[in-house]
Amino acid sequence: MARIVRFHEFGGPDVLKLEELSEKSPAKAEVRIKVSAIGLNRAEVVFREGRYLERPEKLPSQIGYEASGTIDAVGDGVTTFKIGDKVGTIPAFSMSQYGVYGESAIVPVTAVSHFPDSLSFEEGASIWMQYLTAYGALIGYSKIKPGDFVVVTAASSSVGYAAIELINAAGATAIATTRTKAKKQNLLDAGASDVVVTDDEDLVERVAAITGGRGANVIFDPIAGPIVKKLAEIAAPGAVIYEYGALSGAETPFPLFQALRKGLSVRGYSLFELTGDPAKLELARSYVFNALKDRKLKPLIDKTFKLDEIADAHRYMESNQQNGKIVVTV
Amino acid sequence: MARIVRFHEFGGPDVLKLEELSEKSPAKAEVRIKVSAIGLNRAEVVFREGRYLERPEKLPSQIGYEASGTIDAVGDGVTTFKIGDKVGTIPAFSMSQYGVYGESAIVPVTAVSHFPDSLSFEEGASIWMQYLTAYGALIGYSKIKPGDFVVVTAASSSVGYAAIELINAAGATAIATTRTKAKKQNLLDAGASDVVVTDDEDLVERVAAITGGRGANVIFDPIAGPIVKKLAEIAAPGAVIYEYGALSGAETPFPLFQALRKGLSVRGYSLFELTGDPAKLELARSYVFNALKDRKLKPLIDKTFKLDEIADAHRYMESNQQNGKIVVTV
Repeated sequence: MARIVRFHEFGGPDVLKLEELSEKSPAKAEVRIKVSAIGLNRAEVVFREGRYLERPEKLPSQIGYEASGTIDAVGDGVTTFKIGDKVGTIPAFSMSQYGVYGESAIVPVTAVSHFPDSLSFEEGASIWMQYLTAYGALIGYSKIKPGDFVVVTAASSSVGYAAIELINAAGATAIATTRTKAKKQNLLDAGASDVVVTDDEDLVERVAAITGGRGANVIFDPIAGPIVKKLAEIAAPGAVIYEYGALSGAETPFPLFQALRKGLSVRGYSLFELTGDPAKLELARSYVFNALKDRKLKPLIDKTFKLDEIADAHRYMESNQQNGKIVVTV
Repeated sequence: MARIVRFHEFGGPDVLKLEELSEKSPAKAEVRIKVSAIGLNRAEVVFREGRYLERPEKLPSQIGYEASGTIDAVGDGVTTFKIGDKVGTIPAFSMSQYGVYGESAIVPVTAVSHFPDSLSFEEGASIWMQYLTAYGALIGYSKIKPGDFVVVTAASSSVGYAAIELINAAGATAIATTRTKAKKQNLLDAGASDVVVTDDEDLVERVAAITGGRGANVIFDPIAGPIVKKLAEIAAPGAVIYEYGALSGAETPFPLFQALRKGLSVRGYSLFELTGDPAKLELARSYVFNALKDRKLKPLIDKTFKLDEIADAHRYMESNQQNGKIVVTV
């Protein structure tokens, strides 16, 4: 038996139920992990609400993309991992079929990776979603380099912090935005060269000043909605604005005249572009693994909860107070 | 003396006045062309209205991007062209400084090209805007190839026809859209594999049928506005939607959920990205020159006007009846 988080209906944090279920065996090309820590993502909040890119095949549904732990069973055909291996899960599966919130999790072997020994299980559950998401856009597609200015909006999320670290690792300049002063110092500590507090400061003026009027070469934005017109104003000629979320909830305009004038791209982006392509994924995975090993990257953990506090952990994520990753220890 | 078209105020076609002015000498790095034919572009309609990406430095203003003729004077430092050369103008200058509507035109030498001898002056005035515009997006950026489906909206413009020819030259499949049946046969004759008559047919269904459900890899659209949501529906995963105009006049939405789900880019694009970069421009110019020489491309001329009918020629362009290039002979 193992305690597993499931939800029987879509809704708020309290639909997440911790249930005692009999443990299953991994099928062909799957592994089972005795979970030590779970990393939370906003995708799971939206999945729980029934508003994610994909919906559960049926209810009750499991949930969760990221966990770390120790392999305690392997299915047929698994040769790359063995029982006892310390691993984490890569969100390279559909939550309609797999979920990792619980004491035990079964995932496809293609969604498993070792992580450097220097990292704790909490850190091991805080790697793949954040670094791969930021990597795919910033390194994979935009190949950011020294001299580039990269704007990271809503920067105090786990993906935001990961982006700041990757931008610094690539030698580019990270400009972070955050709504209030509360997280400004944390963002500077994490490596942002500048932080724009959007409730108090004019984004367009600040970015013009920071970049000497050149504008941002790459913009990495999970907010969408009306802010995209401002992002187009701060964009340099030829810039790409990555939209990787829909936090605003409002209709998103395409900034046609700025885009025509400056040759801007607004690009929808999700990690699935990377996880759906084994060759791209392995390139990204090994880049991140090595950067973690070389301590160029270090997951920032904000707060940990216990497994039976899973609803509180979701509530905390929805409060937007976090600085970095929210982790549940098992 | 030479008859030159100028406008003293922004407005409708009748603000274009044919005026007898004394001929000027080309300055350093400029050439003067005795004009034989002028190619019309929608950019000039919008410039005349004062609504273009750039505005005249002062009024009265000259106007016009494309002309062909014979060089009759060269400025200091011009070594690549000589008096008597048969040339056309590339829209690689600002209309706030230069204009080619008239019997005589001065342009920077960097905005001049020979064209194959097999072409008439009318055809020579119908090359660079249309082919370079389509080339920059389709070949330069998207590197279209056999197997790609490319949707060309509002396809009966000169740029639309040029795009269809370039798509065929690259071995890809051109799907053209047009509002009414009137131009369907012309588009098929020009090389469109399929034509969607958007007043009568459902674009989404037709493109799904034509592409076997795969969608369009590249979309080349001068309309913008609400149609962009439909274009996102017909786009294949990873597709790029180029927006190179603003014909609709309405606000343009960014199709966020389709873009997130399929990794779509919506990209503002103008020819200035190419003409502002001498290396890129020369690559494009020589590709087009050679394809014209090899008769893989052939400018499609819709209708010719006389120079003193310039207002009528603009009125005709604004009527949206044209199939291909509108040319004024001098």
